[in-house]
Amino acid sequence: MKSTHKILDCTIRDGGLVNNWDFSIDFVQDLYRTLSAAGVEYMEVGYKNSPKLLKSGDAGPWRFIDEAFLRDVIREKTETKLSALVDIGRVDENDIVPRKESLLDMIRVACYIKDVDKGLELVETFHQMGYETTLNIMALSHVMENDLNEAMEAIRNSPVDVVYVVDSYGSLMPDDIEYLVSKFQRLLPDKELGMHMHNNMQMAFANTMVGASKGVQFLDSSVFGMGRAAGNCNTELIVSHLKNPKYEVRPLLDFIGRRMIPLRNEVEWGYIIPYMITGMLNEHPRTAMALRNSPDKDNYVEYYDRLTSPETAFDR
Amino acid sequence: MKSTHKILDCTIRDGGLVNNWDFSIDFVQDLYRTLSAAGVEYMEVGYKNSPKLLKSGDAGPWRFIDEAFLRDVIREKTETKLSALVDIGRVDENDIVPRKESLLDMIRVACYIKDVDKGLELVETFHQMGYETTLNIMALSHVMENDLNEAMEAIRNSPVDVVYVVDSYGSLMPDDIEYLVSKFQRLLPDKELGMHMHNNMQMAFANTMVGASKGVQFLDSSVFGMGRAAGNCNTELIVSHLKNPKYEVRPLLDFIGRRMIPLRNEVEWGYIIPYMITGMLNEHPRTAMALRNSPDKDNYVEYYDRLTSPETAFDR
Repeated sequence: MKSTHKILDCTIRDGGLVNNWDFSIDFVQDLYRTLSAAGVEYMEVGYKNSPKLLKSGDAGPWRFIDEAFLRDVIREKTETKLSALVDIGRVDENDIVPRKESLLDMIRVACYIKDVDKGLELVETFHQMGYETTLNIMALSHVMENDLNEAMEAIRNSPVDVVYVVDSYGSLMPDDIEYLVSKFQRLLPDKELGMHMHNNMQMAFANTMVGASKGVQFLDSSVFGMGRAAGNCNTELIVSHLKNPKYEVRPLLDFIGRRMIPLRNEVEWGYIIPYMITGMLNEHPRTAMALRNSPDKDNYVEYYDRLTSPETAFDR
Repeated sequence: MKSTHKILDCTIRDGGLVNNWDFSIDFVQDLYRTLSAAGVEYMEVGYKNSPKLLKSGDAGPWRFIDEAFLRDVIREKTETKLSALVDIGRVDENDIVPRKESLLDMIRVACYIKDVDKGLELVETFHQMGYETTLNIMALSHVMENDLNEAMEAIRNSPVDVVYVVDSYGSLMPDDIEYLVSKFQRLLPDKELGMHMHNNMQMAFANTMVGASKGVQFLDSSVFGMGRAAGNCNTELIVSHLKNPKYEVRPLLDFIGRRMIPLRNEVEWGYIIPYMITGMLNEHPRTAMALRNSPDKDNYVEYYDRLTSPETAFDR
């Protein structure tokens, strides 16, 4: 597969949902060096939400990236660009400096379909500040066609650079990806597309490759798949498969052995049965995450019964 | 996907390569009940090789299935049929009783492309004894086209019921599966086909679904993916996705929680980086298995360097 693709590694941002963003500065510096050496185009260093608009608890600094702090961490930019994600209603636009004063190159806006208009407003603001922008439409497996069509109309008229297909629940199969990507390509001919997959059914890499082969440009991934619940498409798998001489898997293998294996021994993500169940049922993984934090964490059948019985189903 | 497929669970046989076939009788009985309740069509209970032709060490009984022993274990047959695998040169035909005296319904013959003639001889013998037969051609990713064409000629004229595409090294991608299945279907129009995938690159389930959608009838899998090295396509994923009202994932979820999680804490299989490396390089996992049994088991980059450097490469 010839590669005109761009890999966006979101280990720190999506992986932060697993360890409460408790990555050391050294870890993040090491990862930036690693991704740079691997030829990965973008590294997402965290969320750019505002601590004023969101309970912060004891979250690590990557949940609310501070520009001065970031400058302390990333002393020298490489060819690997930096991005941050914001959520509707949780970002204070006054926290964001113009791109030329920032280490960030790209700001990504995540929203549900009902908030696309608000998302596009933020996109417009960040676009005018000089940033590359993306709109990441979450939970597409729960979206009705008419709502999606309406959103596409608004997106077409916005300056957003990249529009993402996000499989929040890890429930999409390759034929779903074929369908969604074709639709996005037809309705958004002037936009680049992106994919952000979850691995609940071991389909994150396969789905990402389906998108890549159809011409989707931006491919989200994380090292060793680290991300919420079942995690993401693995950066090392994408890097080893896209035909582009600049990609090198070796630095990633090194990083995984040194950094990710010890981390995976402390916190969990990946193909874990309760996440497979929510993927299969096309549901948010929150009940499965709660189960994994309980003494019943391996009582899969009771969990499955609760989730599928009309009387006892969790409030969805 | 409408399902005219048959699932063949090889947890005991392929999983036995991980734990030296150290499954208790109780475990195997439990699995048989579970697969029967899940609607799985075949359970492979082990190898039917001869201990006279193979060093047995302290392997469990599923490596050399004895008919009387098997009758003690499986007291009552369900609709789930039983199969066993044999290897060229390791099976003594005198060990095999005719099907009507056996609990086994199917004997599968595994061989490399150069031994297809020997494989077909065994198939002929077992066929005359009344068994359903398969020929499992291993390591297809290392086979040249002319050798494959020649083998197809011989297979076409044999009584074998099912011919398997075996991705021994876990190196095949969906487009490879498309290619091989199309070729097999074209050259073997009167045979049923099967797929046996390995999960080195997290492609076992995706590849199996590609084959299923092209009409491949026999789908190999194992519960929680247990199998040599990176393991196999997960039975619970296939059962949850094929559209056939008789399939039930619930018994499998129960079995995984009770049986597979404790087992996985003792022995390892699955997406482990050295197996990802051999899959990516299209090589036998034996060097990776050796690495995982050494103190250097997480020194991925040194292993990768050894495997890819011309001077120090392992003897392949």
